[in-house]
Amino acid sequence: MTIPLTSTRLAAIAALLLSSAASAQPAQSAAELAQQGDDPAWAITRDLTTEIGPRMAGTDAEAAARRWATRRLQAMGFANVREEAFDMPVWVRGAEEAWLTGPFLPQKLAITALGNSASTGASGIEGEIAYFGSFDALAAAPDASVKGKIVFIDHQMKPAQDGSGYGYYGRGRFTGPNVAAKKGAIAIVIRSIGTDSHRNPHTGVTNFDAGVTPIPAGAISNPDADQLVRQWRRPQPVRTDAATRLRMKLILTPQNLGIRKSGNVIAEVPGSEPAASPVIIACHLDSWDLGTGAIDDAAGCGIITAAAKHVMSAGQPRRTIRILWAGAEEVGVFGGKAYFDAHGKEKHAVALESDFGADRVWRVDFKLPDGAKSLADRIAAAVMPFGVVRGKQPADGGADVGALIQAGVPAIDLAQDGTRYFDIHHTPDDTLDKIDPAQLRQNVTVWAATLAILANSSDSELP
Amino acid sequence: MTIPLTSTRLAAIAALLLSSAASAQPAQSAAELAQQGDDPAWAITRDLTTEIGPRMAGTDAEAAARRWATRRLQAMGFANVREEAFDMPVWVRGAEEAWLTGPFLPQKLAITALGNSASTGASGIEGEIAYFGSFDALAAAPDASVKGKIVFIDHQMKPAQDGSGYGYYGRGRFTGPNVAAKKGAIAIVIRSIGTDSHRNPHTGVTNFDAGVTPIPAGAISNPDADQLVRQWRRPQPVRTDAATRLRMKLILTPQNLGIRKSGNVIAEVPGSEPAASPVIIACHLDSWDLGTGAIDDAAGCGIITAAAKHVMSAGQPRRTIRILWAGAEEVGVFGGKAYFDAHGKEKHAVALESDFGADRVWRVDFKLPDGAKSLADRIAAAVMPFGVVRGKQPADGGADVGALIQAGVPAIDLAQDGTRYFDIHHTPDDTLDKIDPAQLRQNVTVWAATLAILANSSDSELP
Repeated sequence: MTIPLTSTRLAAIAALLLSSAASAQPAQSAAELAQQGDDPAWAITRDLTTEIGPRMAGTDAEAAARRWATRRLQAMGFANVREEAFDMPVWVRGAEEAWLTGPFLPQKLAITALGNSASTGASGIEGEIAYFGSFDALAAAPDASVKGKIVFIDHQMKPAQDGSGYGYYGRGRFTGPNVAAKKGAIAIVIRSIGTDSHRNPHTGVTNFDAGVTPIPAGAISNPDADQLVRQWRRPQPVRTDAATRLRMKLILTPQNLGIRKSGNVIAEVPGSEPAASPVIIACHLDSWDLGTGAIDDAAGCGIITAAAKHVMSAGQPRRTIRILWAGAEEVGVFGGKAYFDAHGKEKHAVALESDFGADRVWRVDFKLPDGAKSLADRIAAAVMPFGVVRGKQPADGGADVGALIQAGVPAIDLAQDGTRYFDIHHTPDDTLDKIDPAQLRQNVTVWAATLAILANSSDSELP
Repeated sequence: MTIPLTSTRLAAIAALLLSSAASAQPAQSAAELAQQGDDPAWAITRDLTTEIGPRMAGTDAEAAARRWATRRLQAMGFANVREEAFDMPVWVRGAEEAWLTGPFLPQKLAITALGNSASTGASGIEGEIAYFGSFDALAAAPDASVKGKIVFIDHQMKPAQDGSGYGYYGRGRFTGPNVAAKKGAIAIVIRSIGTDSHRNPHTGVTNFDAGVTPIPAGAISNPDADQLVRQWRRPQPVRTDAATRLRMKLILTPQNLGIRKSGNVIAEVPGSEPAASPVIIACHLDSWDLGTGAIDDAAGCGIITAAAKHVMSAGQPRRTIRILWAGAEEVGVFGGKAYFDAHGKEKHAVALESDFGADRVWRVDFKLPDGAKSLADRIAAAVMPFGVVRGKQPADGGADVGALIQAGVPAIDLAQDGTRYFDIHHTPDDTLDKIDPAQLRQNVTVWAATLAILANSSDSELP
């Protein structure tokens, strides 16, 4: 039986959401809000980060997180809750220490290995630093300027509301190590791809081309990079008896553990019309290991799941809502690929993902079929009261649903404010205290309003 | 020959300082200001933290810092620059790691050892946590509630402009380990004495009574303490097969190196009347080892020294200004004690210290002889234009001149805004980027105005 979305029901959802939003005093602490216990997004974020904590792809902790997720999604009343396993190569962190060793007295640096970094061995390596102001400068440098040295890329990422600096500055991490390895560097250290000034380095994955032997690759924190640069620029060394070139010692001992199991966790709000294609909403369950993965991406799982729960509570939607908590996103989107391999041939109405923290949604972007103009208008109108503007660029949907969208599935982005996201992203500081409960609640509100419309859209609007 | 402080000369100093203060645009970055190269306080802070970095009391790094200081003070044109050596017991940090090990999956904590902590041995210790909401709660607890356990003190310090929370909350660090050891605890871990929410624990010294065997003692960061407390409060463990009590594993391997050399560095602006007693101004040269000791206390040395340099440049003062860069303050004020042992019988006109960061001076307090009422009025009027109010409480002067003041030497405090001081104090985050050059310059301005009046005060005003 079709249950059309009446304006009464929409009003009921809005009233529910508005009343809970109104009760969130910005001045209340996370702990006080947590004690109210009435927000599923906060509860998921708090409980996953507290009871599991870091959940690196392919590890026992990620497996424990899947069991946790299954229990939680079942307890919330979702249907068809299940794990879908896949295989993936697993890399884990070892010791990580570094020092500036000359021309001044040794000074310790706050460093972390990049995902897929090679090991220096337990005794480490030491070498002269080859300084580059940017990834482009490294790419343009002759091999001789790099060979046998430790490359340093000094390019400070600047904050942007839409996160657009990540692609530009991020090249130093994504492909800098590959370029340095090809030119004969013995290791590479980059200024963290991050916008904060704390002694917490930012990790993240890097990739070496097939046939390129990986080298040790790490990131130092912004204050450590500042210090390196100041030493680099000093006109006179203090220790005139030592070599005057800037040198670094590096101990990074990560390991490749080979192929192991990871998996996606899937749950559904069954629609009233089983023949109608489902709306898929995604987040990722794995996290980097330095923090507890609160903004990246426990909050995303909290947001999408709370929104689905609110829609379910307001009455059965026409379309099925499929919730995907993807595994192994951080290290290569293995969960998203596995989902596509298993389900890419099924029809999907539209795909959305939340994987950019927990600060407020400020813009909605669409990539919808021609017949969905009214649908987009209705969504834009529904989210406008919560401060969300309508963007003009096409939605891209997020990593874990990227393959679906590449294959033609429509997409909507509920774009979050990323101004402070890269202060925290991939650092030890990605912990629960960084989540603003009021902004988290705004996310849930906007998602619920959007999802209610999508899940009740007609077959002429979405495939 | 007496050179009285004429109003012309005072006006010249004020004009010099005001013009440089006016040129410091708050929006300029530290790097831009540094490139102007015209501020001795900034230059000292930058160069000491860059070329020496961490300089733990009694270590080779502190000795290198003394040599650096001697060279710098001579180069700036000060007279009688010298090291005065003393002996002290030296404690150094080793490995430091901790995990919450049950009832959930192991989660790593950001921990640091407190100064004078005992070692756990390389293989570490594991135990059940005995939770206390405050130092007072621990002090009141029966021995049986602590014996054989790892004590945790959870008392979150709150920021205060005058830093007054340090004494109250700090008891957990200063004497908590001693109390826990006497009650039979196997170790103690405290919530950092700090006001930030980053994964950087705050170190600092602790002391055990004679006859009490030291135990391992560490501090975890505020986000880690939050996590511990959330786990402590969980109603149900995830791992029902394990014990349900909260447990911690701890590896701390600090060492006592025995008695080693430290030293004070002293420099002077010679006064025109050698018989007049000197004004003594102090900071400390040593730092904790986690950061580079920028706010604690390279900036203090920069401020007092730049102020003395400005007074010297404006014309020879009547009294000698003695600059004390004390050694080994952090671990027990050994430098201050050594100075008092060597010079405590000499007459001193007045003592001041800068050891509370680099944020603006907001209040001046006095502890002066009865005949100095006009002197205090003149100073209060001189600093008022820079936003400094006159306090009503007696000055206490700072740790390194504490023994002098205890013995009756007059004191003045130029009290700094401490609201964010304990965000950074004794953490890896105490680095140059945390210094606001505009506020640093206000410090120098206020100090120079005060010092010019003091160094030209009459013998009827100060002893």
